[in-house]
Order: sequence, then C-alpha cells, then structure tokens
Amino acid sequence: MKKAVCLLSGGMDSAVAAAIAKAEGYDIYALSFDYGQRHKKELECSGELAEWLGAKEHRILSIGLGALGGSALTSGAKVPTAKGYDEIKSSKEIPATYVPARNTIFLSYALAYAEVLDAQAVYIGANCMDYSGYPDCRPEYLEKFQELADLATRRGVAGERIKIEAPLIRMSKEEIVKKAVELKVPLECTWSCYKGGALACGRCESCVLRLKGFEGAGIRDPLGYESD
Amino acid sequence: MKKAVCLLSGGMDSAVAAAIAKAEGYDIYALSFDYGQRHKKELECSGELAEWLGAKEHRILSIGLGALGGSALTSGAKVPTAKGYDEIKSSKEIPATYVPARNTIFLSYALAYAEVLDAQAVYIGANCMDYSGYPDCRPEYLEKFQELADLATRRGVAGERIKIEAPLIRMSKEEIVKKAVELKVPLECTWSCYKGGALACGRCESCVLRLKGFEGAGIRDPLGYESD
Repeated sequence: MKKAVCLLSGGMDSAVAAAIAKAEGYDIYALSFDYGQRHKKELECSGELAEWLGAKEHRILSIGLGALGGSALTSGAKVPTAKGYDEIKSSKEIPATYVPARNTIFLSYALAYAEVLDAQAVYIGANCMDYSGYPDCRPEYLEKFQELADLATRRGVAGERIKIEAPLIRMSKEEIVKKAVELKVPLECTWSCYKGGALACGRCESCVLRLKGFEGAGIRDPLGYESD
Repeated sequence: MKKAVCLLSGGMDSAVAAAIAKAEGYDIYALSFDYGQRHKKELECSGELAEWLGAKEHRILSIGLGALGGSALTSGAKVPTAKGYDEIKSSKEIPATYVPARNTIFLSYALAYAEVLDAQAVYIGANCMDYSGYPDCRPEYLEKFQELADLATRRGVAGERIKIEAPLIRMSKEEIVKKAVELKVPLECTWSCYKGGALACGRCESCVLRLKGFEGAGIRDPLGYESD
C-alpha cells in the first residue's frame, strides 16, 4: 500500500487535499502542529478528520514556532477584519496573519515523517487562487520545495522521490467546496476562522474566503457564523 | 548593524561558522534546538558559546522532531562505533546517526527567525568534506535551500535576500580547527561526541572526524577523551 503524509490543519483545504490522497489510494498518515496558534479548534477538527480519513496514524507535534513571534496568528494581537473578497484578492501586501516560514517548517517536518515511514508522497492543502498573498502558497514555491526534497533526503538520494503534492494549488475556493462535497468530506468538522469563538466570526480573511467559496458553489456552510 | 541568525548546536563546526559571522561584522542571534537528542551536553555548550559570541539573543527551541523517530541520535539505539576515518570517508551508506530532514527543519526555523528579526543572513556549520555522508550537508542542497528561501519569505518577495551562509562547506576538519584557533573560539566549550558521557568517547563518527582534524592541525584537543 502506498503511504502519504498529509498535513492536516483542521481547515477545509487540507481536509480536501487529504481526501484526494485517500481517493488516490494512499494510506493516510496525518500530521498536525500545535505551533502556538491562538486557539485549538482547528486541532480538534484535525482529530475528527483523521478519524474520518481512516488515518493509520495521526501525529500532533508541539513545535516552538509561536515563540519566535512575528505574526498576528501567534500573538495576542487583534486578528484583522478583512475588508472583503475583492480587497483581499487585489491587495499587494502580505497580511499580518502571515506566519514567517510556516509552510517551510510544516513541509520540513512532513518530509522527515515521510522519510521515517518510507512514504511516497506529502500532501499539502496550499492554494494560490483564493488566498491571502502568503509567499509560501505559490506554485513556484512548492516546485522549489520538491527540488529541495529531492536533494535533502535518503530517498531522494536513492532516486526515489518523495512527491510533494498540492492538489488544490490552482483551484478556486468554489472548486474546493465542490470537491469537498464530491468526496463527502465532513465540512462541519473543518474550521477556518482565525478566531476561536463558539461560532466562526465571518469577518476575518479566512472566513471571507471560505464563505465566498460556499456562495459560489451554491452550498450552505454547515458551520455557524456570528452573523447568522 | 547587520544581523545574522546562527544555528548553534554546541559542536565545533557551528561555533566556527558563528565566529566567522561575528568576524564579518554581524550581530549574532543564536538559535539552538532541543529536538530529542540523547544528551544535553551540546546544548550546555551552545549557551557558553552564545555568551562568548556576545549574542544579542540565544533562543533554544523545543521542537518535536525526536518524536518522529528514524535515527540512532534520537532513540535508545546504541550509537555505532565508527571503523575509522578512511572507512567513514569511503562509505556510500547514509549512517544510522542521520536524522531525517534535520537540516531542512533547522534551516526553516532559522529562516522564520530571520524574517521576524529582519536579518540579512543565516549561518550554518554544514560541511561536506569530512562528514558522514548526510544528504543535507552537500553544497547543492544548501544552494537549493537558498533558492527556496528567496521564494518563501516576505524579504525574498521584496527582492532582499536572506543569505544562507555555510562558510565551512568545503573546508576539511583540519582547516576548521585552524580557523577556530585563528578566531580564538573556545574549543573547550564545544562538544562533538554523539554520546553524552563525562568524557568524549573518541570512537563514534563525530569523535573520529573531530580528532582527525586536530591531528592534522597539529593541535591538542582540549576535551578529555575516554582513551586518554
């Protein structure tokens, strides 16, 4: 059986990426991080999703990333309210919610786990269409990480690539929602809001992008929102 | 003042790399990891070295790497006794002491820290001459990580590179020892042995390579060895 390490944040995108890995016949080894994010709702969701995926293992690693600071997502700073979908898309700024080098760190751990398991692939839910301008969500970044992985690992040296798979990279949020429905991903077990309230706030960048996806797909988001 | 993040393990190589950064006029921000290694002697040394370097900060991050397994350095497995210098150099095998993706993870954190500090460089003591065949100590690996860093970061996107500096990459251990003496690095505060005994074992790969360097440089290693 093929093995894939799936980065599983508890959000919608990584859940869909992992569901695609499963549909492609991989045994799933889920990897999540407690990195000092403001709330644990995503991590709780990652556990439910790992169960739904029938993951062979689900590792939650405590990593000291938040201690380095540099992001509104790992500090006490207020999570910014997004202006709206079009403003997010047209902004040339990297927002305050960017966590320095986060995907590089997450992918590095995934690579280590894949080496230990002798896995053939790493799946990440990165997406460059409906996103917030993070540099480490772009296709050219992920292609470069593949080149690095080929040089960095025992498997790479032996000529057996660990494939870095980002199946959502060029999908819109609407397409991601449709794919989630097609693969029967339990969307009620995914959490995107940057805040950790009882209900999603509906106003942070992540909520705005998610809601735009559901709206486009013509599907009601099963999560409750403060504005409902 | 220029800022450099220096990966400081507590071993000789990273100490010399950081001393070179200092000699090149950088303020030093030292970064060390508690990653589940078998002993804490290296980490103790990293503290003394950071003090000697006059580091502006010394962060020791606890990271969950050891939990992934896959290496004799993070497990209860016996540290292998090396056959000898020539056998280490001629071996085509990646040894049991290889820690999967370790340098990729360390460099990723250094990159995050450099972003937070707005630092211009990251220094790593990687060396491809007198080493144990780890894939992530080769020049082509480090060049690729530089390309990744240029794509991965806020600074890279703005066209201001975070330089990945590996000043020892093509130096022999003999040259590293001579450079340490030239820069007055307190070699008695560096620890290379894979075991954590009161004295260095003198027989593991790391000791064999270190001793070869001192022998070639015609200098007595200030550390005590079991075989003395």
